[in-house]
Amino acid sequence: MTDIKIVLRDFSKRFNEDLEKYFSFPEGAEKRVIDAMHYSLTIGGKRLRPFLLCECANLFGVEYQTALPAAVSLEMLHTYSLIHDDLPAMDNDDLRRGQPTCHKKFDEATAILAGDGLLTYAFEVLSNALEIKPAQRLALVQLLSSAAGSFGGMVAGQTLDLYARSTGDKSSDEAIISRLEEMKTGRLLRYACEAGAVLGQANEQSRRILVDYSRKVGQAFQIADDILDQEGNQELVGKTLHKDDNQNKFTFVKYYGTDKARKLAIKLIDEAIEQISVFGEKSENLKSLARYIIERNY
Amino acid sequence: MTDIKIVLRDFSKRFNEDLEKYFSFPEGAEKRVIDAMHYSLTIGGKRLRPFLLCECANLFGVEYQTALPAAVSLEMLHTYSLIHDDLPAMDNDDLRRGQPTCHKKFDEATAILAGDGLLTYAFEVLSNALEIKPAQRLALVQLLSSAAGSFGGMVAGQTLDLYARSTGDKSSDEAIISRLEEMKTGRLLRYACEAGAVLGQANEQSRRILVDYSRKVGQAFQIADDILDQEGNQELVGKTLHKDDNQNKFTFVKYYGTDKARKLAIKLIDEAIEQISVFGEKSENLKSLARYIIERNY
Repeated sequence: MTDIKIVLRDFSKRFNEDLEKYFSFPEGAEKRVIDAMHYSLTIGGKRLRPFLLCECANLFGVEYQTALPAAVSLEMLHTYSLIHDDLPAMDNDDLRRGQPTCHKKFDEATAILAGDGLLTYAFEVLSNALEIKPAQRLALVQLLSSAAGSFGGMVAGQTLDLYARSTGDKSSDEAIISRLEEMKTGRLLRYACEAGAVLGQANEQSRRILVDYSRKVGQAFQIADDILDQEGNQELVGKTLHKDDNQNKFTFVKYYGTDKARKLAIKLIDEAIEQISVFGEKSENLKSLARYIIERNY
Repeated sequence: MTDIKIVLRDFSKRFNEDLEKYFSFPEGAEKRVIDAMHYSLTIGGKRLRPFLLCECANLFGVEYQTALPAAVSLEMLHTYSLIHDDLPAMDNDDLRRGQPTCHKKFDEATAILAGDGLLTYAFEVLSNALEIKPAQRLALVQLLSSAAGSFGGMVAGQTLDLYARSTGDKSSDEAIISRLEEMKTGRLLRYACEAGAVLGQANEQSRRILVDYSRKVGQAFQIADDILDQEGNQELVGKTLHKDDNQNKFTFVKYYGTDKARKLAIKLIDEAIEQISVFGEKSENLKSLARYIIERNY
């Protein structure tokens, strides 16, 4: 398999450079919100979602430059969600990617506005992407808004994360955790893969395989994240750990225990790798990425 | 002229009923965010922006049912901006439309999420509106995201509102106030009118007239709002008044004084009414609306 760390590092480098083209800095006081958007977007991040989107598009011969605006808008939307999740009224986090969170670096009002600005800009970038055919742009706006929204999307997931409480019944709790993680992180990962299929005008079967891949990788990713929260090295991970302990949160790791959760993650990744193999050589990076997700230590 | 209050009341009634069709209430804990979105969207509001959009579309023979999803998404986006502006970290307002603001009725986290949810849902509703041709939907997403955004749009306007400070120079200050109000409220009003033109496939000249109408009406509307803040009856207006005094805010009224500002508003409205008259009989409601904006006392 490819050395995915190097591939990801090279991708990030290129992507980060391209990201700058989407920014300009006005002279007025409104520069503050642009600075904050740019800060949060560029303080790190593994660029997993953009990478996933570009790799899935690549399965169908779509070039990086064509997929780029969709990847950029996805990363903007993802970053908005981090900024808002970190707010004092939400997870109240001071550290993100080893750096002060947006409201710590700037202030709370600016962080709220920076999140709003990134969410809005995501749709602006996507809908104006001349590299992408108009019908595909519209399809992507539909998919992205649904994945990010409050009717079964990311906003609904974050709401569950904040307000869902144990029912006392083991199987009901398991269903809630699944739904929470599917909505909070799963939907955007699924979008990344589906966007690749849309850009590549993939047939229904290919699209279903990618959706399934995203679901399995997403679930494994979440489990790995929760294990890192329990066992990770705070300096490497770059965010406050053991949050899940403090806040009475629902996680698979708490529910199953670390060992069982880790086994589940490995099983999911094995299945995902097998399924994605139908795309042949072009799926090498997606296979390595799946493996990497449960092996990373940050 | 038409009795615009009755026209607006009838429009609101119909619009409010139609709005309900865009909502469903899930059974899980994520219902909380939907409840909050629905609460803020339905506690009142004059529905000026949707009305403006539908009336502008009507100039070109576009029916209410076709314009409706665009009008709904605009009102959702407007409502998100009110929810976030009212947050403790922003304007810290307890009262909106005579009712508790979203974070007072629910809590801060829910209000942030409800705003995010409405902003996202606005793009979902718009991009999925089967009543509107795909190319027009895409054009509307482009216009709306730009109008609402941080690069010269509403988010930039709110940033200026929070962070712009007097330069000490009268003409620089005037330029800042103009820019602030143009971005904070002007851009969405302009969108309402331009959306009508897009839906009606209007020619460039008609579109320019509508943009100019929106600019003048928008500026007059803002002045009227500021005068209400100074002189209005709090019970009628339904929100905390004299905020502009407390928070060292930039307004035309402060800058020019109430009398001069009122005269400017009247001049703007007269011009807007004259310009919009080229559309003949179909512009009656838009003419009455312009007049109403500076005569209303709430």
